[in-house]
Amino acid sequence: MQDLTLVMAQLDPLVGDIAGNTAAAIEAVREAKLEHDADVVVFSELYLTGYPPEDLLLREAMEPRLAEALTEMAQKIAKFAPQTLVVMGYPGLRDGQRYNLAGVLLGGEWRGEYAKQALPNYQVFDEDRYFEPGTQPLVIEHAGARLGILICEDLWDGAPVRQSAQAGADILVTLNASPFHLDKPAERERLFATRAREVSRPVVYVNAIGGQDELVFDGGSLVLDAQGEVAVRAPFWLAGLMPVRFVAADGDWRPEPGEREALPESEENLYCALVTGLRDYVNKSGFKGVVMGLSGGIDSALSLAIAVDALGADRVHAVMMPYHYTAEISRADAAEQAQLLGVGYEVMPIAPMVEAFAATLADSFSGLGADTTEENLQSRVRGVLLMAISNKKGLMVQTTGNKSEMAVGYATLYGDMVGGYNALKDVYKTWVYRLARWRNTQSAAIPERVITRPPSAELAPDQQDSDSLPGYDVLDAILERYIEGDMSAEAIIAAGYDRDDVYKVVKLVDRNEYKRRQAPVGVRVTLRGFGRDRRYPIVNGWQPGN
Amino acid sequence: MQDLTLVMAQLDPLVGDIAGNTAAAIEAVREAKLEHDADVVVFSELYLTGYPPEDLLLREAMEPRLAEALTEMAQKIAKFAPQTLVVMGYPGLRDGQRYNLAGVLLGGEWRGEYAKQALPNYQVFDEDRYFEPGTQPLVIEHAGARLGILICEDLWDGAPVRQSAQAGADILVTLNASPFHLDKPAERERLFATRAREVSRPVVYVNAIGGQDELVFDGGSLVLDAQGEVAVRAPFWLAGLMPVRFVAADGDWRPEPGEREALPESEENLYCALVTGLRDYVNKSGFKGVVMGLSGGIDSALSLAIAVDALGADRVHAVMMPYHYTAEISRADAAEQAQLLGVGYEVMPIAPMVEAFAATLADSFSGLGADTTEENLQSRVRGVLLMAISNKKGLMVQTTGNKSEMAVGYATLYGDMVGGYNALKDVYKTWVYRLARWRNTQSAAIPERVITRPPSAELAPDQQDSDSLPGYDVLDAILERYIEGDMSAEAIIAAGYDRDDVYKVVKLVDRNEYKRRQAPVGVRVTLRGFGRDRRYPIVNGWQPGN
Repeated sequence: MQDLTLVMAQLDPLVGDIAGNTAAAIEAVREAKLEHDADVVVFSELYLTGYPPEDLLLREAMEPRLAEALTEMAQKIAKFAPQTLVVMGYPGLRDGQRYNLAGVLLGGEWRGEYAKQALPNYQVFDEDRYFEPGTQPLVIEHAGARLGILICEDLWDGAPVRQSAQAGADILVTLNASPFHLDKPAERERLFATRAREVSRPVVYVNAIGGQDELVFDGGSLVLDAQGEVAVRAPFWLAGLMPVRFVAADGDWRPEPGEREALPESEENLYCALVTGLRDYVNKSGFKGVVMGLSGGIDSALSLAIAVDALGADRVHAVMMPYHYTAEISRADAAEQAQLLGVGYEVMPIAPMVEAFAATLADSFSGLGADTTEENLQSRVRGVLLMAISNKKGLMVQTTGNKSEMAVGYATLYGDMVGGYNALKDVYKTWVYRLARWRNTQSAAIPERVITRPPSAELAPDQQDSDSLPGYDVLDAILERYIEGDMSAEAIIAAGYDRDDVYKVVKLVDRNEYKRRQAPVGVRVTLRGFGRDRRYPIVNGWQPGN
Repeated sequence: MQDLTLVMAQLDPLVGDIAGNTAAAIEAVREAKLEHDADVVVFSELYLTGYPPEDLLLREAMEPRLAEALTEMAQKIAKFAPQTLVVMGYPGLRDGQRYNLAGVLLGGEWRGEYAKQALPNYQVFDEDRYFEPGTQPLVIEHAGARLGILICEDLWDGAPVRQSAQAGADILVTLNASPFHLDKPAERERLFATRAREVSRPVVYVNAIGGQDELVFDGGSLVLDAQGEVAVRAPFWLAGLMPVRFVAADGDWRPEPGEREALPESEENLYCALVTGLRDYVNKSGFKGVVMGLSGGIDSALSLAIAVDALGADRVHAVMMPYHYTAEISRADAAEQAQLLGVGYEVMPIAPMVEAFAATLADSFSGLGADTTEENLQSRVRGVLLMAISNKKGLMVQTTGNKSEMAVGYATLYGDMVGGYNALKDVYKTWVYRLARWRNTQSAAIPERVITRPPSAELAPDQQDSDSLPGYDVLDAILERYIEGDMSAEAIIAAGYDRDDVYKVVKLVDRNEYKRRQAPVGVRVTLRGFGRDRRYPIVNGWQPGN
């Protein structure tokens, strides 16, 4: 009986840091050899540059740096693992065309390169901007097994899978950088099982881990057998090496069942995505920690819990900035949560600044009544305070507005929208509540009253969100149909929603594109985040209707 | 002898406003018929949706709206111009695939559709995200001439031009939405002349006009004869109908020489682009006018001139917001320019707000020395004042930072970067000077001392830009090589620049991506603006070097 040990390197490369990623790859192969006596080590898609490298691909210096990295890998790995086959993802110019490649290294020599055939150019993906599609399969024989190399979208597309099987692959080995969205793990497994059964071959799926700007990669690398059953499932949200042993009888390669991490529940999985996105943004950017406004409301309360889980309480600083409209229970709940989580906490009343602005503007505004200008002013004074603390102490301002608010523009530009990163940017308000409740089942993190009281921006006397917006279950249902579903106003009404609500919401979404364009990045967790996913004009004459 | 009158409809559609664009198109055909007895009227690329419609293309309601527009055009135009051939640009789903189309209407019937073959997916273009490429030529015979229909990139690519000629076209008729960048008009004519000569056919180039978010379309529609000589050149930066008469001898169609607008000088052309971009953003968004900070420096002085030229003095409001570091000549020059141009003008000293913030932050900052935090605070107080005026009076804040500053992050997020639109966003500082001098040759608009004094942000005592940056000639030369040229630091040094300067500048550019990501949009006028043109990661481990 033949056997082969394949190690999936589920790692977190830093975009652009080719030298650092190369060094980490060499160490991973060393560990795979030492710990698992690996015959094969497989990395994720575009591992050497990180994913997505975007326009870094266009830089003159990209090719020489990659060439140097490939040479270094070949020389160093040959010394300690000359019999280990390494499958590595990187981009490259070949005959003047740029490809998304998987290179195969053995015994100090690069033996072949596979060029990704199916290039995604939808949702968050822009691969046609950079790459030409490959046309040929690559099947490499090693330790008696023929490995068919594929990259990410090839597996979703299907045609390259069948091509590889026809070219003689025993095992399909795929390199991936598959961004997370809610419920994607289960969706992936259904699809990969279909592919495995279509060609009666085992499938190896190696995914990246970690956050990169608005994207998070969830790991959960997989091995499925030829019947589509999961043999090995690597942890989600954790970098590491995961071995799988394949055995062959009569040339039929079968993965031995190994560790199978459970598929996480939606709330836990989403929460981990938010923690990972925030943590990696802060750490990879080199911030000492975060500072954030704590209002006594649920968005900032959940954001604080996420920040503490991501960075530790000693790297999180909260500021309560009360004004006349701040309820006593808001002050009490903010203080209680800060103490509960053990974060730094300050109270800075904003009245002196608000009054100074009002006095300076009085002449210019004379004869004009109060409106949202005065509400925005409060919010902007808070923004300026947070940014001053950020500048002085090297802490990134964490923004806390949720997707429902970002959608309808229920947020103040340069006010509560200031900051470097927003963990809740793609989380609807109804999900904010679900996550807050789930988080409290793990350990007390958010005072109960913050979850149960009616939401308010507290920018005017006795203000409640429901004064100017439909209830959040209705709002979110309309938003999901409009944003994720691209449905027309009339189609949403036909699905059972109130005409006035729908037209109001749809107009607000379109009108507030200018605000979102200046918003901080945040973790994308749906199929249509407010980022590279959704590209709308600001100047826009589209009217709601049919 | 045969003849044919073709009218180029160089118009300014509003993105998303299909009903409005359709109505304007019908009126344009009516006028073309009445004024010029047009045999053919040609519109620009994707005229019915405006260009670029971006993800509006993905909306469910797009297809029914387009179908309605095409029906309306057919019915209405048949009544007053049944013999006029109309060539119209629009997108469409055909057999489940979306194409960038040019439809041909005659006598109330759509007679054919051409699908764009060459889809640009680089720089600012994302056409692969939306469209499948066509494969077939379309040649339509009308009034004895065979018109070969092509769309924009087809003409740049060349292969569809040859295909159309082989399919029997006498005249190549191209629909375009060709975004402006500096020196593009001359570049276009060289290329189109080459194409005309390659196939010995006249070329008709119809371009759009007007601003759409960061893009501006400059018009300058053209007709070249089969030898590549320009027969007709429509005005730049002006919407209108431009007729051209073709005559045929022995089946050889020749455009009769007509109006030939001169190719504008660089300064004038660039200035017009900035005026057009700002004007269309403000007007198409429905703002009453603009408000802006006037500092006595050259960026705000040039921005004020642009705003007045775009909107008229009565729609422009300037605010001088002095602090301790504001020089007396800054106050005097700002006041002088406001009076010269006749704009609304207020002075709002910022000391009361700056002092209120400092007092509130004193405890938190105790023991920490002064740094850029205090400079940013001044800038942010100014931003809050401008936004308050904007909110209260319905004026858009015009941002004034130039490309050199945006590149190296010499700007304060939520401070001088607040605003809806930035006319100078893609204009290097050295060009700011050139434009200011050119503008003053037209009429006095900027006090001379503003142009000649050394630039300073005036955020600290005796501060000058040159304290922390290389001189602007050197800075801009390095930036152009790094941003437009994608050159490495070492390659720029090899081209003759100081090592320390180059490394400093290159690091600043990379490190300040986060600021640019939250910056307002502005007019793109180079081949690499800070917008959809340049897609860089914020979290980025790329290091300067080779």
